[in-house]
Amino acid sequence: METFDDVRVDRTALEDFITALLTRGGAAEDGARATARAVVDASARGFDTHGVRLATHYAATLAAGRINPNPVLRFTRQAAAVGHLDADNGFGHLPSYRAIDEAIAMADEAGIAAVAVARSSHHGATGCYTMAAAQKGYAAIGMTHADAIVVLHDGVKPFHGTNPISFAMPVEGEEPMLLDMATSSIPLNRVFLRRATGHPLPPEVAVDEAGAVTTDPHKATALLPLGGTTYGYKGAGLAAVVDVLCSAFTGMLHGAALPQFAGPDLSQPAELGHFFIVLRPDVFRPLAEINGRMAAFLADLRGQPAKPGTRVMAPGDPERPLQEDRRRHGIPVDLVTWDALRDLAARHGCTIPEPMGR
Amino acid sequence: METFDDVRVDRTALEDFITALLTRGGAAEDGARATARAVVDASARGFDTHGVRLATHYAATLAAGRINPNPVLRFTRQAAAVGHLDADNGFGHLPSYRAIDEAIAMADEAGIAAVAVARSSHHGATGCYTMAAAQKGYAAIGMTHADAIVVLHDGVKPFHGTNPISFAMPVEGEEPMLLDMATSSIPLNRVFLRRATGHPLPPEVAVDEAGAVTTDPHKATALLPLGGTTYGYKGAGLAAVVDVLCSAFTGMLHGAALPQFAGPDLSQPAELGHFFIVLRPDVFRPLAEINGRMAAFLADLRGQPAKPGTRVMAPGDPERPLQEDRRRHGIPVDLVTWDALRDLAARHGCTIPEPMGR
Repeated sequence: METFDDVRVDRTALEDFITALLTRGGAAEDGARATARAVVDASARGFDTHGVRLATHYAATLAAGRINPNPVLRFTRQAAAVGHLDADNGFGHLPSYRAIDEAIAMADEAGIAAVAVARSSHHGATGCYTMAAAQKGYAAIGMTHADAIVVLHDGVKPFHGTNPISFAMPVEGEEPMLLDMATSSIPLNRVFLRRATGHPLPPEVAVDEAGAVTTDPHKATALLPLGGTTYGYKGAGLAAVVDVLCSAFTGMLHGAALPQFAGPDLSQPAELGHFFIVLRPDVFRPLAEINGRMAAFLADLRGQPAKPGTRVMAPGDPERPLQEDRRRHGIPVDLVTWDALRDLAARHGCTIPEPMGR
Repeated sequence: METFDDVRVDRTALEDFITALLTRGGAAEDGARATARAVVDASARGFDTHGVRLATHYAATLAAGRINPNPVLRFTRQAAAVGHLDADNGFGHLPSYRAIDEAIAMADEAGIAAVAVARSSHHGATGCYTMAAAQKGYAAIGMTHADAIVVLHDGVKPFHGTNPISFAMPVEGEEPMLLDMATSSIPLNRVFLRRATGHPLPPEVAVDEAGAVTTDPHKATALLPLGGTTYGYKGAGLAAVVDVLCSAFTGMLHGAALPQFAGPDLSQPAELGHFFIVLRPDVFRPLAEINGRMAAFLADLRGQPAKPGTRVMAPGDPERPLQEDRRRHGIPVDLVTWDALRDLAARHGCTIPEPMGR
């Protein structure tokens, strides 16, 4: 985890504020609220790279025309367990929550269901949506492709996006187990952050303009796939799977053919695809048995011996202390983002929430 | 790829021979043939670690009592798109092919389907089954858990198996795209092979008895998850997902609670779970559109610039030259395995095929 100077803000107040900011920017209420819900949820769960800091990016893409402010979502059930959702180039968050809800409705009958989302935009942390399913008692797999920023194994130019894969699974008596991982070792934001802090990058996570591995964050222009220089074909392979399911199965182009997330042109639609699979656990096995298996698995895992000064953790465990802290003390907003949000608030005539006391 | 001294054997003759060997060992014909088909198919596709060399292990587990020689497979359709297959502790290959067939039948109606396989045994290369689906025009995700051989991130004792994930996708005019990867960087067989050849292991793939990273194949007793010492939580996270789907969703125990694959006790059932998801592509998008997307994706990927002396490849591409060679010159069997197969043939009164001329 990187640390940063921040203010703390009440969760509900922050969600309402970001919703107001985006609706004043022209976005329909439901899309704005889903976006606010997703970014605040990501921050609340400790995923700051995909949290509130993205609100300024979403405001910018809304203003520049990439985002359709009043999308009409069209869901088509194509088979008993398959649906297609056309997101009409609005924000990516509302259609992702909607896709999960539609998949749940189909999985209730069929036991498993998939929804392919087309003509969507950046949806923040994919784990927000698998988690939404898990909190309702369903297991879910989620993925999204993205524009090129990760080189192929032995490649020198970016080809895949960070193409994350998420899996969430309900666990009785505690938060769901959540995996939410990029198929690169680090996100590009980590490079930007290290430029600011002056710290070198870890070995074998990034490359320079010529495709050579570098630990200098100022020289790094693209990422290596998970697995580094020797086993990067595995990270790249997973990224390819994500790209296929999010393009060929949704109707979108593959990631390398998409417009750049970061611009400079923020006026063209992102034309992203997402892919979700929802499983209804109690169709597979009796719920009590599944709950027993999950409890035994997690207890055995968490009880394993660890290296001195560390402990072993299940997916999602590392963020648990942050979640508790944020429940008590509010959502952290880094000062760069906070200043940008204040500027936006002033421009749109919104009232920014008062930071919480320490 | 490791190279080894071998004999070359005609594919059909080898498959018939392994089938005969296992039926003489007491196994029912259908299970024996599925096992032979899978191991020869894995060798034909270049996956020697999961190829013909495993035939001797399967013969040993059959003789020792781990494998039920005459299993009665029981398939239960639990919802429109979910099935459960009890493999009755026979070989793992027949129920894995059967699971794919049942999932295809359900996906024909529902668009997507899952089959959880319980009370199964080692099934060789998971890619054999996703590939079987793709060769019939379906995309497939496959996974299996296994007994503990990979340490957790920051862990010192083995907990997960190599828990592979496979994905296969039909591609018009060529072999399906196939990803088939362990969630560790290397399989344990690689360690054994390096002990024999005396070559050191790559950095950050294996640990010694105390959990310390080692490149000495003689000291290595367990594997690190994909991602090494820094990003191993990603490989371990994927392994956890595989373990959950193959245990809680099948009714089996998690991997660390399973008997050891390699023995010494080969008399107890392996009690493994596998998990398969099959997708019918033309339910998602028109087939011509999907084929066009896949062709554009693969052409763009394969055309990317590469480091000097290398070229970038799609999942499955690295094995293509081996496949062509093996189609022409037969299936390679390493000499250690060949000697063991000759001994088994003599013991069971089978005729081992004549190696092909060079």
